[in-house]
Amino acid sequence: MSDGGSVPAVAVTLGDPAGIGPELIAKLVAGADVAERAQVVVVGDRWVWEDGQRVAGTRAALREIASWDRVRTGGPESPCLFAVDTVRPDQVQRGVAGPAGGASVLRALRFCLDAARAGHIDAVCFAPLNKFAMKQAGLAFPDELHFFAEYLGVRGFVCELNVLDGLWTTRVTSHIPLKDVPPALSPPRIKEAARLLYRALRAAGVERPRLAVAGLNPHAGEGGTCGREEIEIIEPAIREARAEGVPMDGPFPADTIFRRALAGLYDGILTMYHDQGQIAMKLMGFERGVTVQGGLPVPITTPAHGTAFDIAGQNKANVEAMSRAFALACRLGASRAVDQPQPPATRRVE
Amino acid sequence: MSDGGSVPAVAVTLGDPAGIGPELIAKLVAGADVAERAQVVVVGDRWVWEDGQRVAGTRAALREIASWDRVRTGGPESPCLFAVDTVRPDQVQRGVAGPAGGASVLRALRFCLDAARAGHIDAVCFAPLNKFAMKQAGLAFPDELHFFAEYLGVRGFVCELNVLDGLWTTRVTSHIPLKDVPPALSPPRIKEAARLLYRALRAAGVERPRLAVAGLNPHAGEGGTCGREEIEIIEPAIREARAEGVPMDGPFPADTIFRRALAGLYDGILTMYHDQGQIAMKLMGFERGVTVQGGLPVPITTPAHGTAFDIAGQNKANVEAMSRAFALACRLGASRAVDQPQPPATRRVE
Repeated sequence: MSDGGSVPAVAVTLGDPAGIGPELIAKLVAGADVAERAQVVVVGDRWVWEDGQRVAGTRAALREIASWDRVRTGGPESPCLFAVDTVRPDQVQRGVAGPAGGASVLRALRFCLDAARAGHIDAVCFAPLNKFAMKQAGLAFPDELHFFAEYLGVRGFVCELNVLDGLWTTRVTSHIPLKDVPPALSPPRIKEAARLLYRALRAAGVERPRLAVAGLNPHAGEGGTCGREEIEIIEPAIREARAEGVPMDGPFPADTIFRRALAGLYDGILTMYHDQGQIAMKLMGFERGVTVQGGLPVPITTPAHGTAFDIAGQNKANVEAMSRAFALACRLGASRAVDQPQPPATRRVE
Repeated sequence: MSDGGSVPAVAVTLGDPAGIGPELIAKLVAGADVAERAQVVVVGDRWVWEDGQRVAGTRAALREIASWDRVRTGGPESPCLFAVDTVRPDQVQRGVAGPAGGASVLRALRFCLDAARAGHIDAVCFAPLNKFAMKQAGLAFPDELHFFAEYLGVRGFVCELNVLDGLWTTRVTSHIPLKDVPPALSPPRIKEAARLLYRALRAAGVERPRLAVAGLNPHAGEGGTCGREEIEIIEPAIREARAEGVPMDGPFPADTIFRRALAGLYDGILTMYHDQGQIAMKLMGFERGVTVQGGLPVPITTPAHGTAFDIAGQNKANVEAMSRAFALACRLGASRAVDQPQPPATRRVE
């Protein structure tokens, strides 16, 4: 666990061994400024790490550790490797999703979550994983976020946050059919999502987050002539949230709200459903996007893109989003406050 | 009406006199290449046109006509002004929506539609109007498209098309509440919208339009685990459309389909609801977007932006989208085939 002025300890996983994760982590760790920003602990199979270095053409010397007590010896250190055996080379076919890769991902992540719960690390940054492979390996949740929440015993509202160039979004509903979105909206749920977004921005260092809320209907309902949810649900939620100390503007038409944000008017946008935000965020910068697992007691980040099986092992993968995900894990790990009720900012699920 | 090799006759209206329309048309007509692309007929009040020239600082000399018979005298001509009295100066307050401005817009548009029905002009390009002002003036339709359709006696499927840098989109549903979108989807309706998009692209000169169709649900339903409309409605519609000679791919996740189009893979995208396409198109280039009134017997285009009352009269308005709307009206007017059943490509509502 971070102690005062030193850099945070950040665990970094290699992702699905059949994807671009290992080569991305090799490139990331070879970066000059990594050791200044965090005590990095690469968690994963030694052979996968070495394979990633071979693909990326890097030769970073990692200090091997076999106990979390060895992570910190005081002062900046070279990155560590905490080798764990999760998968054998003969179980992995590059570019192909499979249960062995999925199981490998789950084991490495559980290992990191245990370390976070015990206070050994301040944040986790994971390389791209493949949900299908994880489901083949027995994942019983719709996505990794709900796996994290269950493993960490979180009972509150969780939702992924999408971050691009300083603009944060989250959504009131996520992976549900569109027809189920309108009945799922309610002032309490909207306020939960708003609080999650507000706290995440605060944890990322934005002192007074400026939030905007999207409407549900075309032109935000055109004053009630094209849908009533804005008037009956979203506007009351905004009023209540403001009264409870989470200021936000809206509801705005979904097709112009992101232009407002691009103009610098907002730090965070709360959308009502999956594609409302994802269409915009993926258009604005798919290669730079970062996903934060919102609502958990430990900061966890990952690139917005996936395993890119089609280019795995070819040293073509762009490390930009991975680097940004790592930088954000460092910042959130340092603040130690992401998604925590405030105060206290340092409560942990143990 | 265009005769063989000559340029098309295109009527251009000044839009709401309180908005940026008059100054945009002044800038447009002052452009060097306008006369090469069309026989332009500016339709509107002489004082509004002159006021637009004053704001824009242009001094184009228009040939005044008082009969449509005078539009064509053979060979390229300087632009004409067909002066019609629709509004008095004392009825217009710059930057303010009002019933006199709305009535002016409606009168000028009816005048153009009559000319199109009579075969005097090949296309209409209108400067920005204000729906609220038009409703104050008695417009009994949700938008100008439905006014056009009623006035021209169109009974078939109509929908606006949005055009940006050669990418065309239209949608199966438009200005309805989001909750009403899923039940409004059906294979026949999807096919109607697809045909409209296909024909419009053909009319614009794309010989073999490549169309993509968006799904309705997150990740296009994830194989039925996150919504069934893709499997039960959209996929059958795509199969039937293909069999009927309208090839299209999909359904694709809505949050990646526009990236495919940006990569040059498609000419047209069919979306299921308003914001699905509008979020993307407004992000990709609000200042360059053009709207085409789809499903009508005469090509009608306009900039995607509005009257911009906040900057009207200040010569700040960007003429880019207006110029693109005009260029597209010229192209569609020349092809004389937009949204027509094929063959014949020259059928008109008389």
